[in-house]
Amino acid sequence: MNDVDVRYIQDTKIRQSFINHLSELVLERRLELFKKVLSNRTRYITVVLEDIFQAQNASAVLRTCDCLGIQDVHVIESRYSFNINSEVDMSASKWLNIYRYNAPKYTSEQAILSLKEKGYRIVATTPHDNDKFINDFDINKGKFALVFGTELTGLTKGAMNLADEYVKIPMYGFIESYNISVSAALSLYELVHRLKNSKIDYAIPADEAEIILLAWLKKTVKNCHLVEKRFLDEYYK
Amino acid sequence: MNDVDVRYIQDTKIRQSFINHLSELVLERRLELFKKVLSNRTRYITVVLEDIFQAQNASAVLRTCDCLGIQDVHVIESRYSFNINSEVDMSASKWLNIYRYNAPKYTSEQAILSLKEKGYRIVATTPHDNDKFINDFDINKGKFALVFGTELTGLTKGAMNLADEYVKIPMYGFIESYNISVSAALSLYELVHRLKNSKIDYAIPADEAEIILLAWLKKTVKNCHLVEKRFLDEYYK
Repeated sequence: MNDVDVRYIQDTKIRQSFINHLSELVLERRLELFKKVLSNRTRYITVVLEDIFQAQNASAVLRTCDCLGIQDVHVIESRYSFNINSEVDMSASKWLNIYRYNAPKYTSEQAILSLKEKGYRIVATTPHDNDKFINDFDINKGKFALVFGTELTGLTKGAMNLADEYVKIPMYGFIESYNISVSAALSLYELVHRLKNSKIDYAIPADEAEIILLAWLKKTVKNCHLVEKRFLDEYYK
Repeated sequence: MNDVDVRYIQDTKIRQSFINHLSELVLERRLELFKKVLSNRTRYITVVLEDIFQAQNASAVLRTCDCLGIQDVHVIESRYSFNINSEVDMSASKWLNIYRYNAPKYTSEQAILSLKEKGYRIVATTPHDNDKFINDFDINKGKFALVFGTELTGLTKGAMNLADEYVKIPMYGFIESYNISVSAALSLYELVHRLKNSKIDYAIPADEAEIILLAWLKKTVKNCHLVEKRFLDEYYK
């Protein structure tokens, strides 16, 4: 459907020009909403879901990420595939960057290592000997990826071994874990709240934010692949 | 199965005597766990679920209540019936007091009014003109009931009209609400955390705590209805 060379997105000048072009095709109110939401988005915290297989849980986590401003979600599907329940999701996935890692091509370890290479601290959320409470986790030591494990058996050994830190959420009852979508929500809520009250520059850098804005605009403008093709043909003429 | 007159539970002396009797029939470790969990239970906060119909949501909320020490959950079933997914629930419902209000006998309004009569402030969790953020909710003004509405349409007008206060959870994305199980978890986590750090006496009164302990013991001892009958026959002899 889209036969244009999408590498133009990396070119600041063309990209900005196309954003301006598309901006004229959406309601001003819509554009304002995009900018407002974008100003609250972050990549300082990212989420990794390892083998979440219940669609309702997966969807609730995506919805929470949108609500709390987490832009990137990394989905590892080494044993189970990730399914979304669009009724629960409320189309959150449309506005997020979802990165999928499928076995056998990409293992859980490779996914985590690639985040480490990008400078993320890997934080396993699980009861563990060396764990600390989420309340005591130091958000100031650099960006981090919160890793959540599958519903019944939790994180894989591979993920556990690669983690830099381990956190757990306080609990006072008989049940020894929260539901995964609850666990993700509580961790993210706690940490996003602290991030917003900190001096950390958590905003998405301007060039990356532009690329996200462009993606959102493209999803909003009808028949945007045609608009895009026409614009680029004109631009390069 | 159980043909004993359960009114003995209201008699402190017999109750305590039977608790001592049952305590000898469970592992000491188990009894210690019961007492530890019970010391963290509260009725200062209670939860009201109005027409939650997705079993997975209902179950996740019950599990969260157990984890956070909320003993009582009020379930209103005026339009939809409440179902539990025991895999998600992890048997949380076993350790909670769940009160059900079924239409047409008990309406949503009656359920809420009966909580008001018991001295609870009714707190609707919903976006609303007069709402305040959950972070600003004053926990010191007395015990309160957090009311959560059904998945798609939220709280009924009846419940909204009867509420004393309205609270909402901060959100920064496109989606205008959290999943219901997430919403309950975030509200409860925030308020339980503050309750534990306050000077409020949130513990369950001794006599009520004994009744709960007795109920837990009865669920743990095998064939307890026989043990109970034998004990009472002996007691009244």
